[in-house]
Amino acid sequence: MYFRCGLNLLYKDLSRLTGRTTQTTWGSLSRSLVLSPQRRIPDFSNFVARTNTCGELRSSHLGQEVTLCGWIQYRRQNTFLVLRDFHGLVQVVIPQDESAASVKKILCEAPVESVVQVSGTVVSRPPGQDNPKMPTGEIEIKVKTAELLNSCKKLPFEIKDFVKKTEAVRLQYRYLDLRSFQMQYNLRLRSQMVMKMREYLCNLHGFVDVETPTLFKKTPGGAKEFVVPSREPGKFYSLPQSPQQFKQLLMVGGFDRYFQVARCFRDEGSRPDRQPEFTQIDIEMSFVDQTGIQSLIEGLLQYSWPRDKDPVIVPFPSVTFAEALSTYGTDKPDTRFEMKIVDISDVFRNTKIGFLQDVLSKPQGTIKAICVPEGAKYLKRKDIESIRKLASEQFNQEVLPVFLKANRNWNSSVAKSIMEEQRLRLITLLEIQDEDVVLLTAGENKKTCSLLGKLRLECADLLEARGVVLRDPALFSFLWVVDFPLFLPKEENPRELESAHHPFTAPHPNDIHLLYTAPEKVRSQHYDLVLNGNEIGGGSIRIHNAELQHYILATILKEDVKLLSHLLQALDYGAPPHGGIALGLDRLICLVTGAASIRDVIAFPKSSRGHDLMSNAPDYIPPEELKPYHIQVSRPTDAKAEKSSWNHPHCPES
Amino acid sequence: MYFRCGLNLLYKDLSRLTGRTTQTTWGSLSRSLVLSPQRRIPDFSNFVARTNTCGELRSSHLGQEVTLCGWIQYRRQNTFLVLRDFHGLVQVVIPQDESAASVKKILCEAPVESVVQVSGTVVSRPPGQDNPKMPTGEIEIKVKTAELLNSCKKLPFEIKDFVKKTEAVRLQYRYLDLRSFQMQYNLRLRSQMVMKMREYLCNLHGFVDVETPTLFKKTPGGAKEFVVPSREPGKFYSLPQSPQQFKQLLMVGGFDRYFQVARCFRDEGSRPDRQPEFTQIDIEMSFVDQTGIQSLIEGLLQYSWPRDKDPVIVPFPSVTFAEALSTYGTDKPDTRFEMKIVDISDVFRNTKIGFLQDVLSKPQGTIKAICVPEGAKYLKRKDIESIRKLASEQFNQEVLPVFLKANRNWNSSVAKSIMEEQRLRLITLLEIQDEDVVLLTAGENKKTCSLLGKLRLECADLLEARGVVLRDPALFSFLWVVDFPLFLPKEENPRELESAHHPFTAPHPNDIHLLYTAPEKVRSQHYDLVLNGNEIGGGSIRIHNAELQHYILATILKEDVKLLSHLLQALDYGAPPHGGIALGLDRLICLVTGAASIRDVIAFPKSSRGHDLMSNAPDYIPPEELKPYHIQVSRPTDAKAEKSSWNHPHCPES
Repeated sequence: MYFRCGLNLLYKDLSRLTGRTTQTTWGSLSRSLVLSPQRRIPDFSNFVARTNTCGELRSSHLGQEVTLCGWIQYRRQNTFLVLRDFHGLVQVVIPQDESAASVKKILCEAPVESVVQVSGTVVSRPPGQDNPKMPTGEIEIKVKTAELLNSCKKLPFEIKDFVKKTEAVRLQYRYLDLRSFQMQYNLRLRSQMVMKMREYLCNLHGFVDVETPTLFKKTPGGAKEFVVPSREPGKFYSLPQSPQQFKQLLMVGGFDRYFQVARCFRDEGSRPDRQPEFTQIDIEMSFVDQTGIQSLIEGLLQYSWPRDKDPVIVPFPSVTFAEALSTYGTDKPDTRFEMKIVDISDVFRNTKIGFLQDVLSKPQGTIKAICVPEGAKYLKRKDIESIRKLASEQFNQEVLPVFLKANRNWNSSVAKSIMEEQRLRLITLLEIQDEDVVLLTAGENKKTCSLLGKLRLECADLLEARGVVLRDPALFSFLWVVDFPLFLPKEENPRELESAHHPFTAPHPNDIHLLYTAPEKVRSQHYDLVLNGNEIGGGSIRIHNAELQHYILATILKEDVKLLSHLLQALDYGAPPHGGIALGLDRLICLVTGAASIRDVIAFPKSSRGHDLMSNAPDYIPPEELKPYHIQVSRPTDAKAEKSSWNHPHCPES
Repeated sequence: MYFRCGLNLLYKDLSRLTGRTTQTTWGSLSRSLVLSPQRRIPDFSNFVARTNTCGELRSSHLGQEVTLCGWIQYRRQNTFLVLRDFHGLVQVVIPQDESAASVKKILCEAPVESVVQVSGTVVSRPPGQDNPKMPTGEIEIKVKTAELLNSCKKLPFEIKDFVKKTEAVRLQYRYLDLRSFQMQYNLRLRSQMVMKMREYLCNLHGFVDVETPTLFKKTPGGAKEFVVPSREPGKFYSLPQSPQQFKQLLMVGGFDRYFQVARCFRDEGSRPDRQPEFTQIDIEMSFVDQTGIQSLIEGLLQYSWPRDKDPVIVPFPSVTFAEALSTYGTDKPDTRFEMKIVDISDVFRNTKIGFLQDVLSKPQGTIKAICVPEGAKYLKRKDIESIRKLASEQFNQEVLPVFLKANRNWNSSVAKSIMEEQRLRLITLLEIQDEDVVLLTAGENKKTCSLLGKLRLECADLLEARGVVLRDPALFSFLWVVDFPLFLPKEENPRELESAHHPFTAPHPNDIHLLYTAPEKVRSQHYDLVLNGNEIGGGSIRIHNAELQHYILATILKEDVKLLSHLLQALDYGAPPHGGIALGLDRLICLVTGAASIRDVIAFPKSSRGHDLMSNAPDYIPPEELKPYHIQVSRPTDAKAEKSSWNHPHCPES
């Protein structure tokens, strides 16, 4: 039966997308998202023409007279039709008797996806015709009256999740794409999760939701800020990359606990999975330290986590920036699986193998390895070749694979040169088991870490492509990364420093003395929150001392302090110690829903080129409409390479 | 005692600003806003350095060891200081014994408004030293340790509500102004009221909070939209005046019940009490009619209304646009008081008074009047003169005052010409009592209504200046205004029509036939919500039929339909009947808090000239930063008078 097939595919589609095997669909969406026992059930049918939603009807409604409004999902041989609303599907029996000819005509002639209103009685399905997979599968509607509310023209694509559409078509007809189960699920989950976050912050912990301006002033170095011409010749507003300054000023203003679901803007040109506008859960507190912010956020995620997912376990583990780099080769490690980077330099300290000797004799020279579990069983020759190619092309490094066969023979070009004692130490250090493969590389410390970090993820992809479940899709693995450096050498001139995140980040209390002697060694009180290898948040304790802030801006960063005079002055007028964080909402919801792209958790996203494909924005504007703003369009010149901003490119807060 | 004086003045200040005589202040803010019995008390002190807030301490805390963080509000003779946080004030006893010399030094030397942390014991005040006006007035803190967290430099003004500051200074040092009780109250009330609205919409009624884009496309005729240059030469985004198109597209997308606390933008240049960016509670529903939206909003306001105000009574009364104009001379009547406009033409149908005869002989000629209660007692000669001057200068109309003295003699230039029978009918029609004054005018119908509407408000101001309480400041008088015209003649060419609100408004079902014969007579399904004479919301049932929408856009409004092709197409693909509303949040909160200006309910408002006086936005941008956007600044030319947009200037939704 086509209708059941359709639903089955809906189930499958969902479990694929969310990575779960629970059977969630139109009907159970309402159960999992809304009807959880602790919460009052919202009334979906007050104020409107219907008495009930299509998706809520059950055997308990038998005999009730109902009025339903919805879209015709499917019709079968002019006898049944399936009506859909946001809540689910219900089967409607088309009356066949002469007296109901007009009703039959309406219901049989309306094209699929037309909008109809029907009134009738909830009845049991005839014996044997129940559909246990459909939440409303025990009942059907015996229709008495029907009205065609709006007819539907021929659609560019069918509203069925299993019908594959290109993303361009989905974005062009976004209003149709939004009818899909998956988009309804994603956006409704987003709404509910944000609502729970608000309850946690506002009702439970006394945070104040304060709206900050969107029309602001360009921050020094803020090269990625959109500009908005004003009616005063030559003067521009800019769209802020974050409410950073405002939230700090709110602390100076005594607001103590601020939050905002804040729209932020960053003009990065064309970037595949970035949006020119994005949303962050923006938080700031007074009299708080790093631990306080971390506990707050752990509680926030635990409280707002969807009930159809495994609960969040707190506290989250924490690693330092240095540990993250040395163990995972990245500052945003995916901790759902092991395969950690191990420093095996000591094993080879007295080796006879020439190239290893060479490396170890250099400063920062190390030998490191990762052990790929069951790699010898699953990784094919071409996999190993692609790994070595990646290492050579992207890192200019050699990688040496060492296979540990089931017969405990080592299969490698260097196997013969490795002594038995070294083998045993390697087995212990890397926890090598039969059928594993070890990927070994030697070189400069940072580079080997980065390479092995990359290979770690690459191997995970390869193993999963062979059917090994390495990263459980139901697992959400949170991690704090702390003790970031406060400054980084500038790419264009490594002898100058720039802020690793933003210039308001406080130095680590133990490192303050280094500010005046070796600022490049100062750690910061910045912290990142990582989920499954994605940075979903970042924040810091801020500088509340005007003198220190001035020193860092003027002396270390060599910025024009005049542009921030209001902030420096504010710090002088009784600024409390404060700190905060921002969570990238789009990315977080994307991970929670298992969506393929952040565009699947945004109602009207821009394309990867920053276009609204539905309305065709941005668009040309006649010159006379630009006149009040005293600007005119100039022909393209050699647009300079964008100056990188203060802000860490991966930090949602920046 | 200075400290008590300060607090007394705080009370007075508040009662003046909110128009209430209840004694609300720092301490009771927490009671009225937060600690209401139905709601769980938020925990303000978890995650941070303090154990308690300053404002929460009572006799029930006696003997407890507490740590408090706050600002030094006031110090008296090095023996006491008053510590302030957002929650209230508490008295701290400075230790005088030798062993606590360092604590004494910190607390005595820190300037006022410095930030300190103190730890100590909650003790009773000595007998007779209780301060019943202070919520923490029964206790004080016996300090053991103290830490200066940040010292405060000399302030540009004192942080006391009774210290008057110019608005420019307040905006320049907004972070200091925010510490005032009134700004804390306004913004915290705003946060809590919006949170309650979210609970009502999201948790109780199944609305989905959907974020819509800020970077959009200029709408046809949208002359008041800010433009944002993109990196593609000549192409611009624009900042939307409302999410109107998006919310309708969400209905087409099956979202059924949408809301958003939406940031909107309107570039109106310099306007005294408008902001270039503002916030609206934006709502849209499918399968709804006008009554449904109205019930929803009545429930919303009732549910979210602050508990320290009189409860909202529902349903709200409703008048038609035509009634509003004829009875109050405006489409946003202040219904807190009577003084209605009465048509007295019939009384004078056979009059001998020449100029009245003249007026009545003309089409649309009428004689109308308002009766000002006790006007004869309170209005001075110069008041009457200013009224007549206003009528003559702004409306080119004569106004005839008729005083009804206590001796029942009529005192007016025309009194002699009014016959006894006419007097009696006037007394009945206008419900005239002794000491009232009647303001009478004759002329074209609309003009007389507008004039008397204006005089009605003018007289209310004059009477209140004389001490008469006409508009109870504790009264919130809501009113629906319905049956607006769908189109209005264009100002520049009255033979062409433009939308009275926006082109998506549905015609009144009874008037649809007139669309093709006399469109200027068609009423719409638009409704405005008025509170105390201010429009705080507007909405409509929308057109869901593509053909009708096309006819109105192309044939009646003569707009370029290509710019809205995505919307027209969406209506063709199974758009449900739908409607919505938007409430102007800034204006609503302004009325609820009794603030003098919407700038007092916005954390970081722009000045009346659209400037951020704190950061100096908008500001000049070096030409090289404009290069990526392919624009250059042109010298000012004769900027044309702005073309008025589609949108009704007073509608927060438009």
